[in-house]
Amino acid sequence: MNFIEKLNGAVEKNRSLVCVGLDTSPELIPSGMSVFDFNKAIIDATADLVCAYKPNFAFYEAQGEKGLESLYRTVRYVPKTIPVIGDAKRSDIGNTSEAYAKALFEQIGLDAATINPYLGFDAVEPFLKNKDKFAFILCRNSNKSAADFQSLLCQYEGKLRPLYEVVALKASLWNTNKNVGLVVGATYPEELKTIRQAHPDMVILIPGVGAQGGDLKLAVDYGVDSQKRGIIVNSARQIIYASRGSDFALAARRAAQNLRDEINKHLAEMKS
Amino acid sequence: MNFIEKLNGAVEKNRSLVCVGLDTSPELIPSGMSVFDFNKAIIDATADLVCAYKPNFAFYEAQGEKGLESLYRTVRYVPKTIPVIGDAKRSDIGNTSEAYAKALFEQIGLDAATINPYLGFDAVEPFLKNKDKFAFILCRNSNKSAADFQSLLCQYEGKLRPLYEVVALKASLWNTNKNVGLVVGATYPEELKTIRQAHPDMVILIPGVGAQGGDLKLAVDYGVDSQKRGIIVNSARQIIYASRGSDFALAARRAAQNLRDEINKHLAEMKS
Repeated sequence: MNFIEKLNGAVEKNRSLVCVGLDTSPELIPSGMSVFDFNKAIIDATADLVCAYKPNFAFYEAQGEKGLESLYRTVRYVPKTIPVIGDAKRSDIGNTSEAYAKALFEQIGLDAATINPYLGFDAVEPFLKNKDKFAFILCRNSNKSAADFQSLLCQYEGKLRPLYEVVALKASLWNTNKNVGLVVGATYPEELKTIRQAHPDMVILIPGVGAQGGDLKLAVDYGVDSQKRGIIVNSARQIIYASRGSDFALAARRAAQNLRDEINKHLAEMKS
Repeated sequence: MNFIEKLNGAVEKNRSLVCVGLDTSPELIPSGMSVFDFNKAIIDATADLVCAYKPNFAFYEAQGEKGLESLYRTVRYVPKTIPVIGDAKRSDIGNTSEAYAKALFEQIGLDAATINPYLGFDAVEPFLKNKDKFAFILCRNSNKSAADFQSLLCQYEGKLRPLYEVVALKASLWNTNKNVGLVVGATYPEELKTIRQAHPDMVILIPGVGAQGGDLKLAVDYGVDSQKRGIIVNSARQIIYASRGSDFALAARRAAQNLRDEINKHLAEMKS
């Protein structure tokens, strides 16, 4: 089963476009609890409400060798019917990117990963070779400084357009195996709109709702494809830290459910 | 001691601008040997010939949990007088980049790291806060596809210039703590020349000589600053795999010595 089939299966079964970001920091979870046990409780509490999970590697690497073990165990614990997107933002020159692809897809066993496009095609290609795996190319990130380079107007095919648009264009050309998607932050709704219009069929991973303040309604309205699908809305802190007490799992469940239902409400209100 | 002091100490003591890339793959080292034991032998054989070591994370991550342990042990084994540059090409949005900075500088204990600029300043800033640590911003990478985005002409301050020049300009503005350098591949000598002319004082990490075919003489001529310093010439495969037999450490020593001496010869031949 490839990533898209797995994703569509989870979207269908759970009626959900929600991805829970497993960005777990030991200092923010109940004391005495291990990172893996926390993640396990979050997964148990939300697995019927989401279409994907997305651990960000930084939080695990910050915990040293132990953190990586928690990441590995977490990825393996997610039910096989729900895809796991590794938010690793990797990329390197060819032979080195191959080593990263091996790390992400074979060693850790992820279904998909986020990839930084700055080094160009040969750095991305190793992540696209296995048709069952999927690469989300960073296009327009959710952070404030994303504009520093991503909004620069670049000359491309005789026109001046923002770098993120050129990245999206190139990524669409790399999509011959139907395993390339884009990352576009909910904090930039106009950019999301432009990208969706230019690329009606690509899957867009949307971070930036919740703690980062992106507008959910606009993310849904501007992000979905003609089938009212094609987006994965990620929320991390707002869900996993919905309560900092011993009821954290139940609170995470409620937060995930609210987000799912709110997205579905916006979808239902859209003109078809 | 900050990164630059450590670097200058090693450059001086070993009369060397050579960095050995510790890009160790288990399948390329003598059978039955551990990655750490291989690295240990390489370090023992070259520590009086280099100004830095640079492990690329991909090769360790590709080995799973065990690989990370080898990386940690390798970094700790390098003599304290020689800086270690983690080639991790990381970057993420603000709070996440902070977690990466913690991972690289505190958990692993690196002196410097390579950072991908695509997400802009707030993604880079966490790596610059500790004045003792150093960030090499990817500017012009050594791979073929680097041109895909890095050579796009961008509008910046009323002029059209290649993206890599804008990245170098921004990086120079971020250099208030004197802990920002650039990565420019030896495979692009003209770009290296332009960047050195525009930024006479920044340290440039130069990959791409050796297996990737970059011209060493041009890298030296175009790369060095007015003190005939300011470059770190990385070579990995050409040194660590100089012999695939049991004499690999001695062969690595010879290869590192040759590279050092060749660089020093070019320096001596330069007009001062």
